[in-house]
Amino acid sequence: MNAPVNPTGTESGEGARPLPGKALAASLREGTRAAVEAARKAGSAPKLAVVTATDDESSAWYVRSLVSAAEKSGLLHEVVHLGPKASTEEVRDALRGLGEDGSVHGVILQTPLPPGVDARALAEAVPAAKDVDGANPLSLGRLAAGLAAFAPATAEAVIALLDHYEVPLRGARAVVVGRSTVVGKPLAHLLLARDATVTVCHSRTRDLVEVTREADILIAAAGQPGLVTAEHVRPGAIVIDVGTNPTPDGGLTGDVDPGATRVAGALSPVPGGVGQVTTAVLLAHVVRAAQGTGIGEGLRG
Amino acid sequence: MNAPVNPTGTESGEGARPLPGKALAASLREGTRAAVEAARKAGSAPKLAVVTATDDESSAWYVRSLVSAAEKSGLLHEVVHLGPKASTEEVRDALRGLGEDGSVHGVILQTPLPPGVDARALAEAVPAAKDVDGANPLSLGRLAAGLAAFAPATAEAVIALLDHYEVPLRGARAVVVGRSTVVGKPLAHLLLARDATVTVCHSRTRDLVEVTREADILIAAAGQPGLVTAEHVRPGAIVIDVGTNPTPDGGLTGDVDPGATRVAGALSPVPGGVGQVTTAVLLAHVVRAAQGTGIGEGLRG
Repeated sequence: MNAPVNPTGTESGEGARPLPGKALAASLREGTRAAVEAARKAGSAPKLAVVTATDDESSAWYVRSLVSAAEKSGLLHEVVHLGPKASTEEVRDALRGLGEDGSVHGVILQTPLPPGVDARALAEAVPAAKDVDGANPLSLGRLAAGLAAFAPATAEAVIALLDHYEVPLRGARAVVVGRSTVVGKPLAHLLLARDATVTVCHSRTRDLVEVTREADILIAAAGQPGLVTAEHVRPGAIVIDVGTNPTPDGGLTGDVDPGATRVAGALSPVPGGVGQVTTAVLLAHVVRAAQGTGIGEGLRG
Repeated sequence: MNAPVNPTGTESGEGARPLPGKALAASLREGTRAAVEAARKAGSAPKLAVVTATDDESSAWYVRSLVSAAEKSGLLHEVVHLGPKASTEEVRDALRGLGEDGSVHGVILQTPLPPGVDARALAEAVPAAKDVDGANPLSLGRLAAGLAAFAPATAEAVIALLDHYEVPLRGARAVVVGRSTVVGKPLAHLLLARDATVTVCHSRTRDLVEVTREADILIAAAGQPGLVTAEHVRPGAIVIDVGTNPTPDGGLTGDVDPGATRVAGALSPVPGGVGQVTTAVLLAHVVRAAQGTGIGEGLRG
């Protein structure tokens, strides 16, 4: 259905080819729905649990959309609301409880957490075998070491989108702008595992334009609206926008300036690109966790 | 004592400034010796344990040199010889035993392992709080996530050497040739944590010369003798050779071709560079592990 997308080395002249996530997300969701149905027939029921400890409205909105997506796929779900005054110990206990609960297969710890709660320490309390959003450092380490592990859903969604559009990764120069533990770093490992040559840039990168223009595949994951402009893009390069920055009118905007469309060969938009795929990947991970195929032997049981 | 070393952007004309590891290694060893003495006076005795399951001669040579270095620093040591027929279970049991042994502070699993033994699975059995050579994927993940963890000694030795010669890392373009779990990947994270812009190359990199010539700091860790030639080096760049390839006459040779000296601004040699520092870093880790300062709360006790 899709012609393979290749970096062309020339300006398209007529604007970048858009790389929407909708069709891929739908196909992933359909796969999940079918797998859940099969699991139920075999007597098991994959279940996602979300732990929240905030009354942040945008977080609540995200959790509702996640639960609604889980429902549409036939997944069981449970939201553990600990409230904005929860302590580190309470959150840890909730995560431990879900780790021990055999009916729960995937566990997500939602951010933000209450002030004073140590988010990095709690990431290690997300049960590794149920860590469907790759939050636990053990998941990242296993990923880096080439062992089975769940990658953060956003990072994996980028690879899934590139694969969906048949973008060749082997030997390609991939430049990731952003070094977060949630996107930039795991994505670098996923790209390396696919034989791309990978550069990671960040706020201290000296000449960002020079570095980003080396990219066949440019991934913007800095969380800075409009950071990547036409100037940053080598003509014909493939640009994936991972930014999800809230706009004053309640919408979303990416890290890529609209002007980049002139120069890029293809561009995955925000909204409508990686974000849709991310939720679908997350739910697919819950099914894999229920099947016990997500992670290595050592982490199960 | 050392003038700071900066990438110059021009050929030195008179050959690269050598960056030997000897003085740094001696100073690290002296620090370890003093810390061990202080620990003993306070009634504790830092101890390193090495597990081997091979009769490979070069491995035996390395273990002897490690034990001798540990002795000189006043560290206690124990070598657990399981022999070349050990099973995965035997190795795992030995590691578990050392994890539970309160008198042991640092644990190294020596390679090669017997055929059929799953080295990657066993890396996860190295007790995380005693993982002084950063072999456990959890250590790599914690490192990547910015949490306290022991890095593999070789990767940390590279950073220590760069610091010793006051090479500025912030904003520098660092290119790592090699993506191993032992050197390339953890080194990329250490360099990122120091605000370098980091590129990782490997055997599938399309135009290695083009990529390596972008480096202010070029680190050769591919395990391929002579892979990095003068052509790969931007004039004046700082080159760190991490290769340790055996030569027919029983010596060692690096990944960097001698011809690169003409072009590089500074070059850390093999032998006599990173290797010496590596052992010293490893022993320093044992002291930190004994002090309980190497890793996060969650991993102790």
